[in-house]
Amino acid sequence: MNLLLTSIGKRIELIGHLKTSFRVIGVDASTENPAKSFADAFYRVPRCREEGYVEALLAVCEEEKVSLLVPLYEPEFEILNAARDKFEEIGVKLVLSGEPVTEICNDKRKTAAFFKRYDIPAPETLSDSEVEAVIGGEQAEFPLIVKPADGMGSEGIFFAENRRELEFFYGYVENALVQRCARGKEYTIDVLCDFYGQPVYIVPRIRLEVRSGEVTKSRVDLQRRVMEGTEGLLRSLNREGRVCGPMTIQCFWEESEQRLQFIEINPRFGGGVPLAFAAGADYAAALKRMGESFAAGAAGGSLKGEEKPDLTDFREQEIKELTMLRYTQAVYEDGER
Amino acid sequence: MNLLLTSIGKRIELIGHLKTSFRVIGVDASTENPAKSFADAFYRVPRCREEGYVEALLAVCEEEKVSLLVPLYEPEFEILNAARDKFEEIGVKLVLSGEPVTEICNDKRKTAAFFKRYDIPAPETLSDSEVEAVIGGEQAEFPLIVKPADGMGSEGIFFAENRRELEFFYGYVENALVQRCARGKEYTIDVLCDFYGQPVYIVPRIRLEVRSGEVTKSRVDLQRRVMEGTEGLLRSLNREGRVCGPMTIQCFWEESEQRLQFIEINPRFGGGVPLAFAAGADYAAALKRMGESFAAGAAGGSLKGEEKPDLTDFREQEIKELTMLRYTQAVYEDGER
Repeated sequence: MNLLLTSIGKRIELIGHLKTSFRVIGVDASTENPAKSFADAFYRVPRCREEGYVEALLAVCEEEKVSLLVPLYEPEFEILNAARDKFEEIGVKLVLSGEPVTEICNDKRKTAAFFKRYDIPAPETLSDSEVEAVIGGEQAEFPLIVKPADGMGSEGIFFAENRRELEFFYGYVENALVQRCARGKEYTIDVLCDFYGQPVYIVPRIRLEVRSGEVTKSRVDLQRRVMEGTEGLLRSLNREGRVCGPMTIQCFWEESEQRLQFIEINPRFGGGVPLAFAAGADYAAALKRMGESFAAGAAGGSLKGEEKPDLTDFREQEIKELTMLRYTQAVYEDGER
Repeated sequence: MNLLLTSIGKRIELIGHLKTSFRVIGVDASTENPAKSFADAFYRVPRCREEGYVEALLAVCEEEKVSLLVPLYEPEFEILNAARDKFEEIGVKLVLSGEPVTEICNDKRKTAAFFKRYDIPAPETLSDSEVEAVIGGEQAEFPLIVKPADGMGSEGIFFAENRRELEFFYGYVENALVQRCARGKEYTIDVLCDFYGQPVYIVPRIRLEVRSGEVTKSRVDLQRRVMEGTEGLLRSLNREGRVCGPMTIQCFWEESEQRLQFIEINPRFGGGVPLAFAAGADYAAALKRMGESFAAGAAGGSLKGEEKPDLTDFREQEIKELTMLRYTQAVYEDGER
């Protein structure tokens, strides 16, 4: 079965895992990426906001008889969701949550409103008037976090330790959002959902060291409360729209207060997901079974070409509490261009 | 010949290269590092500011019959320079520049003063009173760069786009230094000097992509003016104190103005140096010849145990203009601890 990954960039480990069950086709807007020689085939496509992006992807899908398309880069999600039917028409299943879900995830204001709507524990987000009141002298507990509502990774995040810093960073950060600090152990939870929004894998890991939003040391820690909280979050998210494929969820667990606080949901593979694979979560095999069910449904003439796969045996797999220690490797190319 | 590297952390590629000519002994303050299994032997030692650090290193050197000791982490340099004699007494040569040099490199104020003293082209550094005058309303060209004088990598560097940002960041950054912006192509120059401060290799590369101070895409570009400028800089540095071993120098080259501006000198291996190795710079073999000369001098009873090695053939090696594209790899360990 053929799987297409977009924006492959540096995702060598992810490609390596998926190759255990798929022929992996990679595309990227740049040829200057180290992953291209690790995929079974590589195509350069336009950037997702350039003209011809969707057409180029459709052409690669036809050429390579792609069954599953997994996008890796947030700005692509809206565009692909809008073109979902075009892909399904040629037998390509998008492994991507529906638009209501990707919208909630991509905008931190919407994420905060979603948490509030379903009583999901999360740090309080201050309204604009609340921020102005704090700047104006109202009592507040510092530090507060100032971050761009549409930011990715850890870019543009500042801790305001006092009123003056809050005032400055609130003006300095574009589209700024102010939140209270969550405390405790920071978890990232790697999740895989089937096409019906049911979690196949929920693998929490502690972030031990992060460099510019990319985790460099991490340890699987099957904390029961974190796993249960994640299940609850996914149930709520499924009421907003269809959840599908890989998710990366972040939360803090404060042991002394027995308090869980969710801060972020990304509807895609996180950078640290190879640890989940190494710990025993066979995403590739599960995705393959999902793809086969879809193909069987399509062959049987069912409405959306889907047949509910049985993933019980995957859910029951034992996950090991491994530690991941990361380093850089390189590929070298002749410098002339 | 046995070579000891300190603070090995994630330096897998560096270890791999040095192993082509040495038995490589690695030490680190943490056992939770991915490099330890790539070294020929690994020892945990105290942090460099903790008691017993020098004694622990001396003990490892004796145990492992170490000839060359190459420290990788700036805060160690002063401590090792102070203990240099203790290492030489047991036949261990520090591959580390002398204290006047490491001091100039580690403190960006001293670097700026050094550049000025020798007319080395560099962006202007503003004095405290000049900064105050700009904040107070004096005409200035923005952006200005605000960075900690004792910072490492790209940590804590801010661009001030206007007076208000300058005022804020000047107070916000600890031990802040304000400089004019250098413009143009940013080069990192990997240098290896022999024990007499003579450059064996000068390999300039363009930084194409950097994440949190670590280069992820880079291309060797043997720009003549950059190489000549670097030679000049090294000549001046040798007048301040003995230059020795690996250096990582940064500059900007503005083609339209034919202007070179140096911004930083680090007396150690940079993170991107594996590109220089891949391009043909055989640091390991050169270091080995240097080590052999030192040992021969010591055996012959020469004063400091040194004999000037002939490194002409290394200097004449051709360097290829390669591109390096980096990605992460991981090692996994059982999570129990």
